[in-house]
Amino acid sequence: MINVGIIGFGTVGTGTAKILIKNRSVIKERTGIDIHLKKIADLDIKKDRGIKLRQGVLTTDACALINDRAIDIVVELIGGTTIAKDMVLMALKAGKHVVTANKALLATHGSEIFRTAAKNRVRVGFEAAVAGGIPIIKVVREGLVANRIKAIYGIVNGTTNYILTKMTDEKAEFADVLKEAQKLGYAEADPTYDVEGIDSGHKLAILATLAYGSSFSIRDVHIEGISKILPMDIEFARELGYKLKLLAIAKETGGKVELRVHPTMVPEEYLISKVDGVYNAVYVEGDAVGSTLYYGRGAGDLPTGSAVVSDIVDIARGIVSGSAEQFYSGSVSPKPKSLMKMDEVISMYYFRFSALDQPGVLSTISGILGKYDISIISVIQKGRQLGKAVPLVVLTHLARERDVAAALREINRLPVVAGKTVCIRVEGLHAA
Amino acid sequence: MINVGIIGFGTVGTGTAKILIKNRSVIKERTGIDIHLKKIADLDIKKDRGIKLRQGVLTTDACALINDRAIDIVVELIGGTTIAKDMVLMALKAGKHVVTANKALLATHGSEIFRTAAKNRVRVGFEAAVAGGIPIIKVVREGLVANRIKAIYGIVNGTTNYILTKMTDEKAEFADVLKEAQKLGYAEADPTYDVEGIDSGHKLAILATLAYGSSFSIRDVHIEGISKILPMDIEFARELGYKLKLLAIAKETGGKVELRVHPTMVPEEYLISKVDGVYNAVYVEGDAVGSTLYYGRGAGDLPTGSAVVSDIVDIARGIVSGSAEQFYSGSVSPKPKSLMKMDEVISMYYFRFSALDQPGVLSTISGILGKYDISIISVIQKGRQLGKAVPLVVLTHLARERDVAAALREINRLPVVAGKTVCIRVEGLHAA
Repeated sequence: MINVGIIGFGTVGTGTAKILIKNRSVIKERTGIDIHLKKIADLDIKKDRGIKLRQGVLTTDACALINDRAIDIVVELIGGTTIAKDMVLMALKAGKHVVTANKALLATHGSEIFRTAAKNRVRVGFEAAVAGGIPIIKVVREGLVANRIKAIYGIVNGTTNYILTKMTDEKAEFADVLKEAQKLGYAEADPTYDVEGIDSGHKLAILATLAYGSSFSIRDVHIEGISKILPMDIEFARELGYKLKLLAIAKETGGKVELRVHPTMVPEEYLISKVDGVYNAVYVEGDAVGSTLYYGRGAGDLPTGSAVVSDIVDIARGIVSGSAEQFYSGSVSPKPKSLMKMDEVISMYYFRFSALDQPGVLSTISGILGKYDISIISVIQKGRQLGKAVPLVVLTHLARERDVAAALREINRLPVVAGKTVCIRVEGLHAA
Repeated sequence: MINVGIIGFGTVGTGTAKILIKNRSVIKERTGIDIHLKKIADLDIKKDRGIKLRQGVLTTDACALINDRAIDIVVELIGGTTIAKDMVLMALKAGKHVVTANKALLATHGSEIFRTAAKNRVRVGFEAAVAGGIPIIKVVREGLVANRIKAIYGIVNGTTNYILTKMTDEKAEFADVLKEAQKLGYAEADPTYDVEGIDSGHKLAILATLAYGSSFSIRDVHIEGISKILPMDIEFARELGYKLKLLAIAKETGGKVELRVHPTMVPEEYLISKVDGVYNAVYVEGDAVGSTLYYGRGAGDLPTGSAVVSDIVDIARGIVSGSAEQFYSGSVSPKPKSLMKMDEVISMYYFRFSALDQPGVLSTISGILGKYDISIISVIQKGRQLGKAVPLVVLTHLARERDVAAALREINRLPVVAGKTVCIRVEGLHAA
C-alpha cells in the first residue's frame, strides 16, 4: 500500500481526493498497487466539498502530514510561490516524493526544486501543471523521447481561449466577455494571470524545459496578453482565413530556442484553430514523428485531478518496483540551449494601420515596410471616409521582429497615421 | 550502454535505425542512457536503405541476434503472425525485452506473449502497434490510469481515412480512389486488411485490452470495412451534417464492453471529423478527464520508428534504474469485462432505402420501423421518378441493433423496396 497526503483542499484537491476514493479499485486492478489517501491538510476543514472522508483524514497541520512517516507521496495543491515552495522543499528534504499542479512554482523555482529532489533521491511529478487533464508532460518526456522537438504550439489557458472563442462567435468586446466568463467561473476575480498570458508563460517554460533540456523560467518568455484585442481584428483575421488564438510557442532554430506567448493568427483549416471554448490543445512537432496534437480539458477539479493521480500512480509504480529512476526535468542536458532574443524572431505579421483616407498612404507605408525587408502578402482597405482615419490591414511574409519594430516606429510617426499600429503575429504551422 | 537488435529491415526497421543513429546523442542527453544499435537481421542485407551502418551490424541470422548475450532488447519488425511469433517467443524465453509494432500478432496471440514475458520477467513494448507515432498506448496505460475509460473512438487506419477523405472531397468512387492510393503507396497491393477494417480491428483489440483489463482478441471485434461505401451516402451524410469515417469503437456500458469497427457518421463539427488524409486520431473519454483526443501520423518509417524508440527508451530506463516493473498489458485485472453481443448494441442509424417512388411508401417503411421501436429524426427524399426506385434516406434516434436487423429484413422484403437497404451507424460523441 502506498500512502498519499494532500496539502490544499480546494478545487483540484477535491477532484484528486474524489478520484483516489472512487477509482481506487480500478487503479488497483490495473497496477496491482493499492493507493490510499491517508491525510488531507487545509486551513479550512469544515467546508462541505461534497465528498465523504473517514474520520481523521482531515487535518489543519500540513507539517505533521509532511513528517508523517507512513506517507510516501505528498501532493501540493495550495498554489502560489511562497508557502507552496516551503512545503514542497520541506517534503523533498523529508524524503517524500512530491506531486504538484503548481505551474507558477515550477516556472519560477523549478531548478531549485528539481535539484533538491535529485539530492534527496525522490521524484517530483507535475503532469497537472500544464494543460490539466491532457498528459502532455508524459507525451513530451516519454512518448516523444526519440524526437528532436522542432516546435510546440499550445493553447494552454482555458480562460483566454473561452474569451477569444466568444469574441469570435459573437463579435463581442473583450471586457463584456470577460465579465460573463467571471460570472460562469471560467475567469478569476483578478484575471490578470490568465488574460495577460502569464499563466500560459509559466506552462510554456515548463514544456520548453522538458523539450530542450535547459532550465527555462518565466523570465525567459516574451509575453503579450489578449486584453487589447478588438473584435475588429478578429473579423479581419477571419476575412484573411485565420482564427485568433493565444498561443504559447517554443521553437528551436539553429540551436537557439524562442519562447513566446501572444495572440496569434492561425490558418482556420488547422486543427488547433478548431479548439474552442475552455478546451486546451498542444501541437508538438518532432523530427521523427512529424505533426502531433493533444486535446482535452485544461482545468477543472476532475480533469486536473486525473493528471495528479497519474503522477501518483507513476511514482507508486517506481516505489513498488524498486526503481531508482528520477523523472526527467530537463536538468540532465550537458548542452543547454540558448534563448533567442525576441528581436531575432522571424514571423509573419498582421498590421492594422489607422491611416488617413487619402491618396498615396498605402504607397508611403508599403515603401517603409519594403525598406525594412518586409514584403506584403495582401492588403484590405475598407470604408471610405476621405480625410478621416480608416483601418488599413496588411498581411506580410516572414520578417524579422527587429525590422518590424523599426518600421512601425517610423510608420507611427507619419502625419497620415492617426494612432498606434496594431501588430499581431501570424503563424503557418505545418500540416496540423 | 543498452544494446538493441532489430529483426526486420523494412520500412519501420529502417526508420527505427535512422532515429537510433541520428538522435542517439539527444536521447543520451535526456535520459543519461546510451542506446546502441548493435545488430539488424534481415534476409536481404544487400538492398540500399539510404542509411549508413558500421560493418558487422547487418546479419541474416536472426537467431544469433536473439541469442547474442550482449543484446538487451530485441525489436521485432517483420510483421505477420507466424515467424514473428516464433521470434518474439524465442527472444522472451532468452530473457530479452521485446519491442514490436506487430498489431496482428498481439491481437491474435497477445495472451500467450504477455504470459511468456511475465514468466521470464521481461517486458513487451508495443507503442508502435497502434496509431503509429501517436503515443496512445502510453496515454491509455499511464496518462489516463486514474480514469475508468467510458469510450474510445479511433481513426486508426491511415489508408481508409485517406480513401474516405478523397471520396468526400472529390465525390469519387471507392475503386478509383483505392487505385490512386495504391499508386501513391498509401495502400497495399492487397488492400484487404486495411479497407475491410481488419487492421483497425487489431488495433482496437489492443486498446480495449489496456482500457478494460480483459484480454480481448480480434475475434471479439465486430468488423465492417469501407469497400461498399458509395459517394452518394457520403453526400447524404454531408447534407445531414455528418462526415463519414471508419471508426474503431470501444465502449463500456453496464459492465459490458462493445467492440466494433465500421463506417460511421460523425457530426461534422466534432474534432475527429476534421482528421483527414493519412492522419490518425484517437478520442478517449475518461470518467475524470472527460473528452481527450490524440492526433498524428499513423504510419510511415519515422513516425512509427518514433514509437518503437520510445518503447526502447522506456525499457532501457527500467533496466538502468533496476526496476522490476512489467508493462501493464491488461492481464492484471481479476475482474474481466464481458463482451457485449453486437445484437445488444445501441446506436443511431442512417438508412438508405431503394424505394419505388409511389405514394404510401414512406408510411409503410416508417410503420415497420415504429413497430421495432425505431423512431425517425429526419427524412430526405429526392429525385422524382414515378414508379422507379429512388433513394429514401432516414436518420434515426437510438435503436437496438437486433431491432434494426429485424426491421430491415422485413422492409427489404417489401415489393416497393427495390434493393438491399444501406445501413450506416451514426455516432454523437460528447464534446470532442
